[in-house]
Amino acid sequence: MPVLVNGRATGLDPLDRGLQYGDGLFETIAVHDGRARFLEAHLERLAEGARRLALPSPDPERLSGQIAAAWPDGRGVVKLVWTRGPAGRGYRPPLSPEPTCIAAGFAWPEWPASAWSEGVRVRYCRTRLGSNPVLAGIKHLNRLEQVLARAEWDDEHIAEGLMLDTMGQVISGTQSNLFAVVAGRLATPALDQCGVAGVMRRAVCGWAADLGNQVAECGLRPEALETASEIFVTNALIGAWPVRELAGRQLPPGPLAAGFNAWLAERT
Amino acid sequence: MPVLVNGRATGLDPLDRGLQYGDGLFETIAVHDGRARFLEAHLERLAEGARRLALPSPDPERLSGQIAAAWPDGRGVVKLVWTRGPAGRGYRPPLSPEPTCIAAGFAWPEWPASAWSEGVRVRYCRTRLGSNPVLAGIKHLNRLEQVLARAEWDDEHIAEGLMLDTMGQVISGTQSNLFAVVAGRLATPALDQCGVAGVMRRAVCGWAADLGNQVAECGLRPEALETASEIFVTNALIGAWPVRELAGRQLPPGPLAAGFNAWLAERT
Repeated sequence: MPVLVNGRATGLDPLDRGLQYGDGLFETIAVHDGRARFLEAHLERLAEGARRLALPSPDPERLSGQIAAAWPDGRGVVKLVWTRGPAGRGYRPPLSPEPTCIAAGFAWPEWPASAWSEGVRVRYCRTRLGSNPVLAGIKHLNRLEQVLARAEWDDEHIAEGLMLDTMGQVISGTQSNLFAVVAGRLATPALDQCGVAGVMRRAVCGWAADLGNQVAECGLRPEALETASEIFVTNALIGAWPVRELAGRQLPPGPLAAGFNAWLAERT
Repeated sequence: MPVLVNGRATGLDPLDRGLQYGDGLFETIAVHDGRARFLEAHLERLAEGARRLALPSPDPERLSGQIAAAWPDGRGVVKLVWTRGPAGRGYRPPLSPEPTCIAAGFAWPEWPASAWSEGVRVRYCRTRLGSNPVLAGIKHLNRLEQVLARAEWDDEHIAEGLMLDTMGQVISGTQSNLFAVVAGRLATPALDQCGVAGVMRRAVCGWAADLGNQVAECGLRPEALETASEIFVTNALIGAWPVRELAGRQLPPGPLAAGFNAWLAERT
Protein backbone atom coordinates (compact mmCIF):
# COMPACT_ATOMS: atom_id res chain seq x y z
CA MET A 1 0.00 0.00 0.00
CA PRO A 2 2.02 2.95 -1.22
CA VAL A 3 1.43 6.24 0.61
CA LEU A 4 2.80 9.37 -1.00
CA VAL A 5 3.03 12.81 0.61
CA ASN A 6 3.41 15.41 -2.12
CA GLY A 7 4.71 12.64 -4.32
CA ARG A 8 7.36 11.48 -1.87
CA ALA A 9 7.36 8.36 0.29
CA THR A 10 7.44 10.19 3.63
CA GLY A 11 7.52 13.61 5.19
CA LEU A 12 4.16 14.59 6.64
CA ASP A 13 4.63 17.64 8.85
CA PRO A 14 2.94 17.08 12.25
CA LEU A 15 1.87 20.74 12.10
CA ASP A 16 -0.09 20.13 8.90
CA ARG A 17 -3.48 21.80 9.29
CA GLY A 18 -5.08 18.63 7.98
CA LEU A 19 -4.16 17.04 11.30
CA GLN A 20 -4.32 20.10 13.54
CA TYR A 21 -7.87 21.10 12.52
CA GLY A 22 -9.11 18.62 9.92
CA ASP A 23 -8.53 21.55 7.54
CA GLY A 24 -8.80 19.72 4.25
CA LEU A 25 -10.71 17.38 1.97
CA PHE A 26 -10.58 13.82 0.74
CA GLU A 27 -11.77 11.51 -2.01
CA THR A 28 -12.05 7.74 -2.04
CA ILE A 29 -11.65 6.53 -5.60
CA ALA A 30 -12.22 3.11 -7.14
CA VAL A 31 -9.48 2.03 -9.55
CA HIS A 32 -10.28 -0.61 -12.19
CA ASP A 33 -7.64 -1.87 -14.61
CA GLY A 34 -5.46 1.00 -13.45
CA ARG A 35 -8.11 3.57 -14.37
CA ALA A 36 -9.79 5.78 -11.75
CA ARG A 37 -13.61 5.42 -12.00
CA PHE A 38 -15.61 8.67 -12.10
CA LEU A 39 -12.32 10.57 -11.93
CA GLU A 40 -13.85 13.74 -13.32
CA ALA A 41 -16.65 13.75 -10.74
CA HIS A 42 -14.16 13.16 -7.89
CA LEU A 43 -11.94 16.00 -9.06
CA GLU A 44 -14.94 18.28 -9.50
CA ARG A 45 -16.14 17.61 -5.96
CA LEU A 46 -12.63 18.19 -4.63
CA ALA A 47 -12.46 21.50 -6.51
CA GLU A 48 -15.89 22.49 -5.18
CA GLY A 49 -14.76 21.63 -1.62
CA ALA A 50 -11.58 23.67 -2.12
CA ARG A 51 -13.69 26.61 -3.28
CA ARG A 52 -15.98 26.32 -0.26
CA LEU A 53 -13.03 26.14 2.19
CA ALA A 54 -11.03 28.77 0.28
CA LEU A 55 -8.26 26.25 -0.22
CA PRO A 56 -5.97 26.44 -3.26
CA SER A 57 -7.55 24.31 -5.94
CA PRO A 58 -5.66 21.13 -6.80
CA ASP A 59 -4.27 20.68 -10.27
CA PRO A 60 -6.28 17.85 -11.88
CA GLU A 61 -3.33 16.56 -13.90
CA ARG A 62 -1.08 16.42 -10.86
CA LEU A 63 -3.78 14.62 -8.88
CA SER A 64 -4.28 12.10 -11.66
CA GLY A 65 -0.55 11.44 -11.54
CA GLN A 66 -0.70 10.91 -7.76
CA ILE A 67 -3.57 8.47 -8.15
CA ALA A 68 -1.65 6.50 -10.77
CA ALA A 69 1.45 6.44 -8.56
CA ALA A 70 -0.53 5.21 -5.53
CA TRP A 71 -2.26 2.42 -7.46
CA PRO A 72 -0.59 1.87 -10.83
CA ASP A 73 -2.61 -1.07 -12.16
CA GLY A 74 -5.26 -3.67 -11.43
CA ARG A 75 -8.18 -3.13 -9.07
CA GLY A 76 -7.78 -1.08 -5.94
CA VAL A 77 -8.73 1.99 -3.96
CA VAL A 78 -6.93 5.31 -3.84
CA LYS A 79 -7.65 7.74 -1.06
CA LEU A 80 -6.63 11.31 -1.87
CA VAL A 81 -6.25 13.85 0.93
CA TRP A 82 -5.85 17.55 0.13
CA THR A 83 -5.06 19.81 3.09
CA ARG A 84 -4.21 23.47 3.69
CA GLY A 85 -0.67 22.29 4.47
CA PRO A 86 1.66 23.04 7.36
CA ALA A 87 1.39 26.28 9.35
CA GLY A 88 1.96 27.75 12.78
CA ARG A 89 -0.49 27.75 15.66
CA GLY A 90 -3.94 29.33 15.36
CA TYR A 91 -7.11 28.80 13.35
CA ARG A 92 -6.41 31.64 10.96
CA PRO A 93 -5.50 30.20 7.55
CA PRO A 94 -2.07 31.25 6.23
CA LEU A 95 -2.17 33.87 3.48
CA SER A 96 -0.14 31.70 1.10
CA PRO A 97 -0.85 28.11 2.03
CA GLU A 98 1.20 25.30 0.51
CA PRO A 99 -1.31 22.46 0.30
CA THR A 100 -0.41 18.91 1.11
CA CYS A 101 -1.49 16.11 -1.21
CA ILE A 102 -1.54 12.60 0.21
CA ALA A 103 -2.34 9.67 -2.06
CA ALA A 104 -2.68 6.25 -0.45
CA GLY A 105 -3.30 3.02 -2.32
CA PHE A 106 -5.31 0.18 -0.76
CA ALA A 107 -6.22 -3.30 -1.96
CA TRP A 108 -9.80 -3.73 -3.15
CA PRO A 109 -11.95 -4.67 -0.13
CA GLU A 110 -13.42 -8.17 0.02
CA TRP A 111 -17.22 -8.05 0.13
CA PRO A 112 -19.48 -11.08 -0.36
CA ALA A 113 -21.31 -11.09 -3.70
CA SER A 114 -24.57 -11.45 -1.73
CA ALA A 115 -24.26 -7.78 -0.72
CA TRP A 116 -25.31 -6.94 -4.28
CA SER A 117 -27.52 -9.93 -5.13
CA GLU A 118 -29.44 -10.32 -1.85
CA GLY A 119 -28.79 -7.01 -0.16
CA VAL A 120 -27.39 -5.97 3.21
CA ARG A 121 -28.62 -5.43 6.75
CA VAL A 122 -28.68 -1.85 8.00
CA ARG A 123 -29.29 -0.32 11.42
CA TYR A 124 -29.90 3.16 12.79
CA CYS A 125 -27.09 4.93 14.63
CA ARG A 126 -27.60 6.94 17.83
CA THR A 127 -24.88 9.43 16.85
CA ARG A 128 -26.43 12.36 14.99
CA LEU A 129 -25.04 14.61 12.29
CA GLY A 130 -24.76 18.25 13.36
CA SER A 131 -26.14 20.75 10.86
CA ASN A 132 -23.99 23.36 9.22
CA PRO A 133 -24.73 24.59 5.70
CA VAL A 134 -21.17 25.89 5.22
CA LEU A 135 -19.80 22.34 5.52
CA ALA A 136 -22.74 20.37 4.11
CA GLY A 137 -22.18 18.28 1.00
CA ILE A 138 -18.39 18.51 0.76
CA LYS A 139 -16.05 15.69 1.77
CA HIS A 140 -13.98 17.48 4.41
CA LEU A 141 -11.73 15.93 7.02
CA ASN A 142 -13.95 16.61 10.07
CA ARG A 143 -15.36 13.10 10.40
CA LEU A 144 -15.69 12.42 14.13
CA GLU A 145 -19.45 11.98 13.85
CA GLN A 146 -18.97 9.15 11.36
CA VAL A 147 -16.22 7.62 13.52
CA LEU A 148 -18.47 7.61 16.60
CA ALA A 149 -21.42 6.26 14.61
CA ARG A 150 -19.34 3.44 13.08
CA ALA A 151 -18.05 2.53 16.55
CA GLU A 152 -21.62 1.81 17.69
CA TRP A 153 -21.75 -1.75 16.34
CA ASP A 154 -19.36 -4.63 15.77
CA ASP A 155 -21.83 -7.19 14.40
CA GLU A 156 -20.20 -8.13 11.09
CA HIS A 157 -23.64 -8.97 9.68
CA ILE A 158 -24.66 -5.31 9.82
CA ALA A 159 -23.16 -3.62 6.77
CA GLU A 160 -24.08 -0.02 7.42
CA GLY A 161 -25.66 2.37 9.92
CA LEU A 162 -27.99 5.20 8.98
CA MET A 163 -27.43 8.61 10.58
CA LEU A 164 -30.09 11.19 11.39
CA ASP A 165 -29.54 14.90 11.75
CA THR A 166 -30.40 16.64 15.02
CA MET A 167 -33.92 17.34 13.69
CA GLY A 168 -34.58 13.63 13.18
CA GLN A 169 -34.28 13.51 9.39
CA VAL A 170 -32.40 10.54 7.91
CA ILE A 171 -29.35 11.88 6.05
CA SER A 172 -27.06 9.03 5.02
CA GLY A 173 -25.13 5.97 6.06
CA THR A 174 -21.82 6.38 7.90
CA GLN A 175 -19.99 5.82 4.59
CA SER A 176 -22.76 5.82 2.01
CA ASN A 177 -25.64 7.81 0.59
CA LEU A 178 -29.20 6.60 0.84
CA PHE A 179 -31.94 6.13 -1.76
CA ALA A 180 -35.49 4.99 -1.15
CA VAL A 181 -38.60 4.52 -3.24
CA VAL A 182 -41.36 6.18 -1.22
CA ALA A 183 -44.91 6.36 -2.59
CA GLY A 184 -43.58 5.18 -5.93
CA ARG A 185 -40.97 7.93 -6.20
CA LEU A 186 -37.17 7.56 -5.97
CA ALA A 187 -35.89 9.91 -3.28
CA THR A 188 -32.60 10.72 -1.56
CA PRO A 189 -32.06 12.98 1.46
CA ALA A 190 -31.33 16.63 0.73
CA LEU A 191 -27.77 17.48 1.82
CA ASP A 192 -27.97 21.23 2.30
CA GLN A 193 -27.54 21.04 6.10
CA CYS A 194 -25.18 18.08 6.56
CA GLY A 195 -23.95 14.92 4.88
CA VAL A 196 -21.62 14.26 1.97
CA ALA A 197 -22.81 14.48 -1.63
CA GLY A 198 -21.26 11.25 -2.91
CA VAL A 199 -19.91 10.73 -6.39
CA MET A 200 -21.99 7.53 -6.70
CA ARG A 201 -25.07 9.42 -5.48
CA ARG A 202 -24.51 11.83 -8.34
CA ALA A 203 -24.14 8.90 -10.74
CA VAL A 204 -27.43 7.38 -9.54
CA CYS A 205 -29.23 10.71 -10.00
CA GLY A 206 -27.80 11.08 -13.51
CA TRP A 207 -28.67 7.49 -14.43
CA ALA A 208 -32.22 7.86 -13.13
CA ALA A 209 -32.71 11.21 -14.88
CA ASP A 210 -31.57 9.66 -18.17
CA LEU A 211 -34.39 7.13 -17.70
CA GLY A 212 -36.85 9.97 -17.12
CA ASN A 213 -36.94 9.28 -13.38
CA GLN A 214 -35.94 12.51 -11.60
CA VAL A 215 -34.68 11.75 -8.07
CA ALA A 216 -36.44 13.82 -5.39
CA GLU A 217 -33.94 15.44 -3.01
CA CYS A 218 -36.00 15.97 0.10
CA GLY A 219 -36.35 15.44 3.82
CA LEU A 220 -36.77 11.76 4.71
CA ARG A 221 -37.90 10.66 8.14
CA PRO A 222 -37.56 7.10 9.50
CA GLU A 223 -41.37 6.76 9.25
CA ALA A 224 -41.15 7.36 5.49
CA LEU A 225 -38.51 4.63 5.17
CA GLU A 226 -40.90 2.22 6.92
CA THR A 227 -43.20 2.52 3.92
CA ALA A 228 -40.45 2.39 1.26
CA SER A 229 -40.78 -0.32 -1.38
CA GLU A 230 -37.05 -0.27 -2.12
CA ILE A 231 -34.03 1.10 -0.25
CA PHE A 232 -30.38 1.08 -1.28
CA VAL A 233 -27.12 2.65 -0.18
CA THR A 234 -24.35 3.84 -2.48
CA ASN A 235 -20.72 4.87 -2.40
CA ALA A 236 -17.82 5.18 -4.79
CA LEU A 237 -16.60 1.64 -4.14
CA ILE A 238 -19.72 -0.47 -3.73
CA GLY A 239 -21.97 1.12 -6.34
CA ALA A 240 -25.41 0.31 -4.90
CA TRP A 241 -26.20 -2.22 -2.20
CA PRO A 242 -29.89 -3.10 -1.82
CA VAL A 243 -31.04 -2.89 1.80
CA ARG A 244 -32.75 -6.18 2.64
CA GLU A 245 -33.26 -5.36 6.31
CA LEU A 246 -33.57 -1.98 8.00
CA ALA A 247 -33.76 -2.01 11.79
CA GLY A 248 -35.49 -5.40 11.72
CA ARG A 249 -37.87 -4.75 8.81
CA GLN A 250 -37.33 -7.05 5.80
CA LEU A 251 -37.38 -5.76 2.24
CA PRO A 252 -36.97 -7.48 -1.11
CA PRO A 253 -33.99 -6.35 -3.22
CA GLY A 254 -35.49 -3.86 -5.65
CA PRO A 255 -35.19 -3.31 -9.39
CA LEU A 256 -33.57 0.15 -9.24
CA ALA A 257 -30.43 -0.93 -7.37
CA ALA A 258 -30.07 -3.89 -9.71
CA GLY A 259 -30.62 -1.71 -12.76
CA PHE A 260 -28.09 0.83 -11.63
CA ASN A 261 -25.48 -1.82 -10.81
CA ALA A 262 -25.94 -3.36 -14.25
CA TRP A 263 -25.43 0.06 -15.87
CA LEU A 264 -22.35 0.62 -13.67
CA ALA A 265 -20.82 -2.76 -14.53
CA GLU A 266 -21.30 -2.09 -18.23
CA ARG A 267 -19.71 1.32 -17.89
CA THR A 268 -16.52 0.20 -16.10
CA MET B 1 9.99 25.20 17.94
CA PRO B 2 10.51 21.53 18.74
CA VAL B 3 7.84 19.17 17.47
CA LEU B 4 7.85 15.64 18.84
CA VAL B 5 5.83 12.70 17.53
CA ASN B 6 5.68 10.04 20.23
CA GLY B 7 8.80 11.60 21.71
CA ARG B 8 10.77 11.49 18.47
CA ALA B 9 11.67 14.34 16.14
CA THR B 10 9.80 12.98 13.11
CA GLY B 11 7.68 10.14 11.90
CA LEU B 12 4.03 11.11 11.61
CA ASP B 13 2.21 8.44 9.61
CA PRO B 14 0.08 10.04 6.85
CA LEU B 15 -2.57 7.41 7.64
CA ASP B 16 -2.88 8.67 11.22
CA ARG B 17 -6.58 8.95 12.01
CA GLY B 18 -5.89 12.38 13.48
CA LEU B 19 -5.35 13.55 9.91
CA GLN B 20 -7.70 11.19 8.10
CA TYR B 21 -10.77 12.02 10.23
CA GLY B 22 -9.75 14.56 12.87
CA ASP B 23 -10.02 11.56 15.18
CA GLY B 24 -8.31 12.98 18.24
CA LEU B 25 -8.01 15.75 20.79
CA PHE B 26 -5.73 18.66 21.61
CA GLU B 27 -4.72 21.00 24.39
CA THR B 28 -3.03 24.40 24.19
CA ILE B 29 -1.02 24.95 27.34
CA ALA B 30 0.70 28.05 28.69
CA VAL B 31 4.20 27.40 30.06
CA HIS B 32 5.64 29.86 32.57
CA ASP B 33 9.15 29.42 33.99
CA GLY B 34 9.15 25.95 32.46
CA ARG B 35 5.96 24.99 34.34
CA ALA B 36 2.71 24.15 32.56
CA ARG B 37 -0.11 26.35 33.91
CA PHE B 38 -3.34 24.55 34.91
CA LEU B 39 -1.67 21.28 33.90
CA GLU B 40 -4.09 19.20 35.94
CA ALA B 41 -7.15 20.81 34.35
CA HIS B 42 -5.68 20.32 30.85
CA LEU B 43 -4.96 16.65 31.51
CA GLU B 44 -8.41 16.16 33.03
CA ARG B 45 -10.11 17.63 29.98
CA LEU B 46 -7.96 15.48 27.70
CA ALA B 47 -8.91 12.39 29.71
CA GLU B 48 -12.59 13.37 29.57
CA GLY B 49 -12.32 13.84 25.78
CA ALA B 50 -10.63 10.45 25.47
CA ARG B 51 -13.45 8.87 27.47
CA ARG B 52 -16.08 10.52 25.25
CA LEU B 53 -14.35 9.41 22.02
CA ALA B 54 -13.47 5.96 23.45
CA LEU B 55 -9.79 6.72 22.87
CA PRO B 56 -7.12 5.17 25.07
CA SER B 57 -6.50 7.57 27.92
CA PRO B 58 -3.13 9.28 27.87
CA ASP B 59 -0.72 8.67 30.73
CA PRO B 60 -0.45 12.00 32.62
CA GLU B 61 3.20 11.45 33.53
CA ARG B 62 4.18 10.70 29.96
CA LEU B 63 2.30 13.77 28.73
CA SER B 64 4.00 15.95 31.32
CA GLY B 65 7.31 14.66 30.02
CA GLN B 66 6.32 15.50 26.44
CA ILE B 67 5.31 19.02 27.47
CA ALA B 68 8.67 19.53 29.22
CA ALA B 69 10.54 18.21 26.16
CA ALA B 70 8.64 20.52 23.78
CA TRP B 71 9.21 23.62 25.91
CA PRO B 72 11.84 23.00 28.56
CA ASP B 73 12.08 26.41 30.21
CA GLY B 74 11.03 30.04 30.10
CA ARG B 75 7.69 31.24 28.79
CA GLY B 76 6.02 29.54 25.83
CA VAL B 77 3.12 27.53 24.52
CA VAL B 78 2.88 23.78 24.15
CA LYS B 79 0.24 22.28 21.93
CA LEU B 80 -0.48 18.64 22.68
CA VAL B 81 -2.31 16.49 20.11
CA TRP B 82 -3.60 13.04 21.07
CA THR B 83 -4.99 10.93 18.22
CA ARG B 84 -6.31 7.40 17.69
CA GLY B 85 -3.11 6.71 15.79
CA PRO B 86 -2.46 5.15 12.38
CA ALA B 87 -4.89 2.67 10.85
CA GLY B 88 -6.24 1.38 7.56
CA ARG B 89 -9.08 2.87 5.56
CA GLY B 90 -12.58 3.21 7.02
CA TYR B 91 -14.27 5.09 9.84
CA ARG B 92 -14.41 2.09 12.14
CA PRO B 93 -11.91 2.58 14.97
CA PRO B 94 -9.26 -0.15 15.27
CA LEU B 95 -9.82 -2.59 18.13
CA SER B 96 -6.36 -1.95 19.61
CA PRO B 97 -5.41 1.60 18.65
CA GLU B 98 -1.88 2.83 19.21
CA PRO B 99 -2.43 6.52 19.95
CA THR B 100 -0.16 9.22 18.60
CA CYS B 101 1.06 11.97 20.90
CA ILE B 102 2.37 15.14 19.26
CA ALA B 103 3.89 17.87 21.42
CA ALA B 104 4.82 21.12 19.71
CA GLY B 105 6.52 24.06 21.40
CA PHE B 106 5.83 27.65 20.30
CA ALA B 107 7.22 31.00 21.40
CA TRP B 108 4.89 33.06 23.59
CA PRO B 109 2.68 35.21 21.29
CA GLU B 110 3.21 38.97 21.32
CA TRP B 111 0.04 40.78 22.38
CA PRO B 112 -0.14 44.48 23.26
CA ALA B 113 -0.60 45.13 27.00
CA SER B 114 -3.64 47.22 26.09
CA ALA B 115 -5.54 44.00 25.32
CA TRP B 116 -5.74 43.52 29.10
CA SER B 117 -5.77 47.11 30.32
CA GLU B 118 -8.12 48.68 27.77
CA GLY B 119 -9.76 45.64 26.24
CA VAL B 120 -10.17 44.32 22.71
CA ARG B 121 -12.52 44.79 19.78
CA VAL B 122 -14.74 41.85 18.90
CA ARG B 123 -17.04 41.11 15.96
CA TYR B 124 -19.70 38.54 15.14
CA CYS B 125 -18.87 35.75 12.68
CA ARG B 126 -21.26 34.56 9.99
CA THR B 127 -20.01 30.96 10.30
CA ARG B 128 -22.19 29.07 12.78
CA LEU B 129 -21.36 26.21 15.12
CA GLY B 130 -23.27 23.03 14.32
CA SER B 131 -24.89 21.35 17.31
CA ASN B 132 -23.97 17.88 18.43
CA PRO B 133 -24.11 16.89 22.10
CA VAL B 134 -21.72 13.94 21.59
CA LEU B 135 -18.92 16.35 20.59
CA ALA B 136 -19.89 19.40 22.66
CA GLY B 137 -17.45 20.65 25.28
CA ILE B 138 -14.42 18.54 24.36
CA LYS B 139 -11.42 19.88 22.46
CA HIS B 140 -11.43 17.53 19.49
CA LEU B 141 -9.63 17.94 16.17
CA ASN B 142 -12.70 18.73 14.01
CA ARG B 143 -12.18 22.48 13.82
CA LEU B 144 -13.23 23.55 10.33
CA GLU B 145 -15.98 25.79 11.70
CA GLN B 146 -13.40 27.78 13.68
CA VAL B 147 -11.07 27.90 10.67
CA LEU B 148 -13.82 29.29 8.43
CA ALA B 149 -14.93 31.77 11.10
CA ARG B 150 -11.38 33.01 11.68
CA ALA B 151 -10.92 33.45 7.92
CA GLU B 152 -13.80 35.97 7.86
CA TRP B 153 -11.70 38.97 8.89
CA ASP B 154 -8.16 40.22 8.48
CA ASP B 155 -8.45 43.55 10.30
CA GLU B 156 -5.67 43.26 12.87
CA HIS B 157 -7.59 45.59 15.19
CA ILE B 158 -10.28 42.96 15.66
CA ALA B 159 -9.02 40.50 18.25
CA GLU B 160 -11.77 37.92 18.20
CA GLY B 161 -15.00 36.85 16.52
CA LEU B 162 -18.03 35.50 18.36
CA MET B 163 -19.76 32.43 16.96
CA LEU B 164 -23.46 31.60 17.22
CA ASP B 165 -24.99 28.16 17.02
CA THR B 166 -27.54 27.37 14.32
CA MET B 167 -30.33 28.42 16.71
CA GLY B 168 -28.84 31.91 17.07
CA GLN B 169 -27.41 31.54 20.58
CA VAL B 170 -23.95 33.03 21.16
CA ILE B 171 -21.59 30.18 22.10
CA SER B 172 -17.98 31.41 22.16
CA GLY B 173 -15.20 33.17 20.33
CA THR B 174 -13.30 31.32 17.61
CA GLN B 175 -10.53 30.60 20.13
CA SER B 176 -11.98 31.76 23.43
CA ASN B 177 -14.88 31.37 25.82
CA LEU B 178 -17.24 34.22 26.57
CA PHE B 179 -18.42 35.78 29.82
CA ALA B 180 -20.93 38.60 30.23
CA VAL B 181 -22.57 40.40 33.12
CA VAL B 182 -26.25 40.51 32.19
CA ALA B 183 -28.82 42.02 34.57
CA GLY B 184 -26.14 42.09 37.25
CA ARG B 185 -25.29 38.41 36.92
CA LEU B 186 -22.10 36.84 35.53
CA ALA B 187 -23.07 34.39 32.79
CA THR B 188 -21.33 32.19 30.22
CA PRO B 189 -22.93 30.21 27.39
CA ALA B 190 -23.95 26.64 28.16
CA LEU B 191 -21.82 24.22 26.13
CA ASP B 192 -24.02 21.13 26.05
CA GLN B 193 -24.73 21.40 22.30
CA CYS B 194 -21.47 22.80 20.88
CA GLY B 195 -18.38 24.78 21.84
CA VAL B 196 -15.26 23.93 23.84
CA ALA B 197 -15.24 24.03 27.64
CA GLY B 198 -12.00 25.93 28.12
CA VAL B 199 -9.58 25.41 30.95
CA MET B 200 -9.56 29.18 31.60
CA ARG B 201 -13.37 29.19 31.54
CA ARG B 202 -13.27 26.60 34.29
CA ALA B 203 -10.78 28.73 36.21
CA VAL B 204 -13.04 31.80 35.96
CA CYS B 205 -16.03 29.79 37.20
CA GLY B 206 -13.98 28.47 40.13
CA TRP B 207 -12.61 31.92 40.98
CA ALA B 208 -16.08 33.47 40.85
CA ALA B 209 -17.62 30.71 42.95
CA ASP B 210 -14.92 31.20 45.60
CA LEU B 211 -16.07 34.84 45.76
CA GLY B 212 -19.69 33.68 46.21
CA ASN B 213 -20.53 34.62 42.62
CA GLN B 214 -21.86 31.49 40.90
CA VAL B 215 -21.56 31.82 37.11
CA ALA B 216 -24.82 31.14 35.28
CA GLU B 217 -24.35 28.68 32.40
CA CYS B 218 -27.23 29.51 30.12
CA GLY B 219 -28.36 30.46 26.65
CA LEU B 220 -27.13 33.91 25.63
CA ARG B 221 -28.53 35.72 22.62
CA PRO B 222 -26.90 38.72 20.92
CA GLU B 223 -29.73 40.91 22.29
CA ALA B 224 -28.70 39.96 25.83
CA LEU B 225 -25.11 40.95 25.09
CA GLU B 226 -26.36 44.37 23.96
CA THR B 227 -27.46 45.02 27.52
CA ALA B 228 -24.37 43.52 29.21
CA SER B 229 -22.47 45.82 31.58
CA GLU B 230 -19.23 43.82 31.17
CA ILE B 231 -18.05 41.30 28.60
CA PHE B 232 -14.78 39.40 28.47
CA VAL B 233 -13.25 36.50 26.56
CA THR B 234 -10.91 33.89 28.00
CA ASN B 235 -8.50 31.20 26.93
CA ALA B 236 -5.58 29.27 28.35
CA LEU B 237 -3.01 31.75 27.04
CA ILE B 238 -4.61 35.18 27.43
CA GLY B 239 -6.43 34.72 30.72
CA ALA B 240 -9.25 37.27 30.34
CA TRP B 241 -9.45 40.07 27.79
CA PRO B 242 -12.10 42.70 28.46
CA VAL B 243 -14.25 43.39 25.40
CA ARG B 244 -14.23 47.15 24.85
CA GLU B 245 -16.17 47.02 21.60
CA LEU B 246 -18.63 44.41 20.37
CA ALA B 247 -19.93 44.86 16.82
CA GLY B 248 -19.59 48.63 17.13
CA ARG B 249 -20.98 49.02 20.68
CA GLN B 250 -18.49 50.47 23.17
CA LEU B 251 -18.09 49.07 26.68
CA PRO B 252 -15.87 50.08 29.57
CA PRO B 253 -13.38 47.41 30.74
CA GLY B 254 -15.12 45.84 33.73
CA PRO B 255 -14.03 44.89 37.23
CA LEU B 256 -14.48 41.13 36.90
CA ALA B 257 -11.96 40.62 34.09
CA ALA B 258 -9.48 42.82 35.96
CA GLY B 259 -10.10 40.96 39.21
CA PHE B 260 -9.67 37.59 37.56
CA ASN B 261 -6.46 38.63 35.77
CA ALA B 262 -5.03 39.91 39.06
CA TRP B 263 -5.83 36.58 40.72
CA LEU B 264 -4.30 34.73 37.75
CA ALA B 265 -1.10 36.80 37.82
CA GLU B 266 -0.70 36.15 41.55
CA ARG B 267 -1.20 32.44 41.03
CA THR B 268 1.37 31.96 38.24
